[in-house]
Amino acid sequence: MKPSGPTIRTIPDGDDRERLVCGDCGFVMYENPKVIVGAVCTWQDRYLLVRRAIEPRLGYWTMPVGYMELGETTEQGAAREVWEEAQARVEVDGLLTITSIPQISQVHLIYRARMLDDRFAAGPESLEVALLSWDDIPWDSLAYPNVRASLEYEREVKGVAAFPPLTRS
Amino acid sequence: MKPSGPTIRTIPDGDDRERLVCGDCGFVMYENPKVIVGAVCTWQDRYLLVRRAIEPRLGYWTMPVGYMELGETTEQGAAREVWEEAQARVEVDGLLTITSIPQISQVHLIYRARMLDDRFAAGPESLEVALLSWDDIPWDSLAYPNVRASLEYEREVKGVAAFPPLTRS
Ligand SMILES: [Zn+2]
Ligand SMILES: [Zn+2]
Repeated sequence: MKPSGPTIRTIPDGDDRERLVCGDCGFVMYENPKVIVGAVCTWQDRYLLVRRAIEPRLGYWTMPVGYMELGETTEQGAAREVWEEAQARVEVDGLLTITSIPQISQVHLIYRARMLDDRFAAGPESLEVALLSWDDIPWDSLAYPNVRASLEYEREVKGVAAFPPLTRS
Repeated sequence: MKPSGPTIRTIPDGDDRERLVCGDCGFVMYENPKVIVGAVCTWQDRYLLVRRAIEPRLGYWTMPVGYMELGETTEQGAAREVWEEAQARVEVDGLLTITSIPQISQVHLIYRARMLDDRFAAGPESLEVALLSWDDIPWDSLAYPNVRASLEYEREVKGVAAFPPLTRS
């Protein structure tokens, strides 16, 4: 059975905006913004970056980051992404950046995190993982503007216990 | 046509966790955490609270809060909820509280906001709206623990330009 699923864009009875409806069974899908969680992780004065093994932005560098899943807190999600993509264990600290991308209905929550030791390895979604000094960060090969913004803000609040998140959109 | 929709909980081929699948057409629904946005709004030293006209917690008081929608930033969502529920215009300021509720896969982002004037009125989802002094807040009739926590933190950071969000879960 090939699923068609909710692909027809229409305003259902009693609703006030367009939704995706399935032409086979009539199911109405209510889409919601997605939450992306991640962390700028450091070990002493070095930064943990992963090179993406998947599209989009395959081959480019980022902090570990991905979709928040059901049944976890935002901090647990950030730590899980660090483990999945960089096989590193971290303690998640304050919220560094909160970025809304309304064009694609995403909210990115990037935390500050301290690595518990200096072990790391590439997970299945990473081509490689590196622990890099500030000057060795591949600034011209970062996957998204939010990577640079989060790294720079982490540096700005280094040693500061409590700080407001940088708001971006 | 009565939609059945994705109601069968199973692990689809090639997946690694349970999803909801439609028995009629085979559509697989990927559920995601939901974002709730809202704001503690003040006019001079008074707080804008709404009494809920809908379940859950019908009849209880809260700051304006609701589901973030597609195509908006978190701040725009918070201001929209204030308008819909309390018919007040606000300037959204810093992030007051970020609360994860993993049991129901929700993330609540509550902002600080200043009312642009002292006009307000009940929207369709509110029984009434009130602009209350701190001592007049109905502390025993608040809808959720997050209402008290966000109000108290707003008071704690009153006059502080930049502050870390209170993290709750
Ligand atoms: Zn269908
Ligand atoms: Zn179906």
